[in-house]
Amino acid sequence: MSVTDIIYAVKSVTAIARLCRMVRWQPGAPERLQKAALELFATRGFEQTTAAEIARSVGLTERTFFRHFSDKREVLFSGQHQLAQAFLAGVDAAPPGTAPIEVVASALRSAASFFPDDRRTHSRLRQSVIDHNPALQERELHKLAGLATALAAALRSRGVDDLAAVLAAESGTTVFGIAFTQWIREGEERSFAELTEDVLRELLTMTGQATASRRIV
Amino acid sequence: MSVTDIIYAVKSVTAIARLCRMVRWQPGAPERLQKAALELFATRGFEQTTAAEIARSVGLTERTFFRHFSDKREVLFSGQHQLAQAFLAGVDAAPPGTAPIEVVASALRSAASFFPDDRRTHSRLRQSVIDHNPALQERELHKLAGLATALAAALRSRGVDDLAAVLAAESGTTVFGIAFTQWIREGEERSFAELTEDVLRELLTMTGQATASRRIV
Repeated sequence: MSVTDIIYAVKSVTAIARLCRMVRWQPGAPERLQKAALELFATRGFEQTTAAEIARSVGLTERTFFRHFSDKREVLFSGQHQLAQAFLAGVDAAPPGTAPIEVVASALRSAASFFPDDRRTHSRLRQSVIDHNPALQERELHKLAGLATALAAALRSRGVDDLAAVLAAESGTTVFGIAFTQWIREGEERSFAELTEDVLRELLTMTGQATASRRIV
Repeated sequence: MSVTDIIYAVKSVTAIARLCRMVRWQPGAPERLQKAALELFATRGFEQTTAAEIARSVGLTERTFFRHFSDKREVLFSGQHQLAQAFLAGVDAAPPGTAPIEVVASALRSAASFFPDDRRTHSRLRQSVIDHNPALQERELHKLAGLATALAAALRSRGVDDLAAVLAAESGTTVFGIAFTQWIREGEERSFAELTEDVLRELLTMTGQATASRRIV
């Protein structure tokens, strides 16, 4: 093999690699679009960033963008489906006959796996984008409400009656939301799992004291 | 006074009354706009109804509409401020030192006064409009979240620590939301106050049992 052959081979490989970065069916496009979008939203503002700009910034076309996301907002919310799946896996993991609130505790432990410590910076940035835009806040709340609905349905299908299922599910998403807010606070170092357990314990303590004073149980 | 004089006087009064109904600074314009809007939203659909049409249907101008409401959606949500006031009045009514969840119970009792039985039909119609439109659902959730925030702030200002304040406030709006859904169900006859008390009791029972089994308190 001559030096020219080697140079030619190296150039070919480089060209193929560049081509791979450019072609639109390459793997990982949604992840790259999400990362780029978040950075653009955070630096320029959500309203000031277009889908075409997000796509261009990672060498993709607007058309590719819309093959993966129905709109600009969805880039921020596409993880919600997996989060819901994590919650439901936790429901399934609880043995039959487990009390509703303990089933929810199991769902929360499972959901915590969705937020490993190395995701904290990403989650923080995403939240700052959402906090700056009322329409995004509304979408976020809507998605959280959907999570509660799915959780309640999973509880009902275990035989939990309707009211208890809805209450346990709503309490679970409340705990989740509060733990999440604490988790992304600047300087917070506790894990997501630890925080959800603490918040749930506080809820049970608070209501337990009221129950004791009212002598309900 | 002759018969002609009397007829003239009656006619004048009628004309003035009609004029009063037409002029745009007449009292009650917001209420009439709300009622008309709700009817149009329910029959034609929210998207298909314009602010101008709502105004015209009660003999007012679009300009008057926008003096009272920032946009078409706000017609459905303008009561939220009074609702928040009712919640906060309930917080204030609880004696100092009351446990957070019991302060919330007091807030719920006060909020119930906002939903007398003769409002049920109106609330049902309003909810059916909201249920048909995702953007309205998002706004509704946003307003409910604002209510929880206000309630948590009121609890903190009573000396309740941050986590307990947020948990109690969120639990309170959860109970409120579930009770509201039950209240507007077709055929439901229990009062709003009765329903919130039942849902709160169920929450305390459910969490109280978990507390007992975990031996938290």
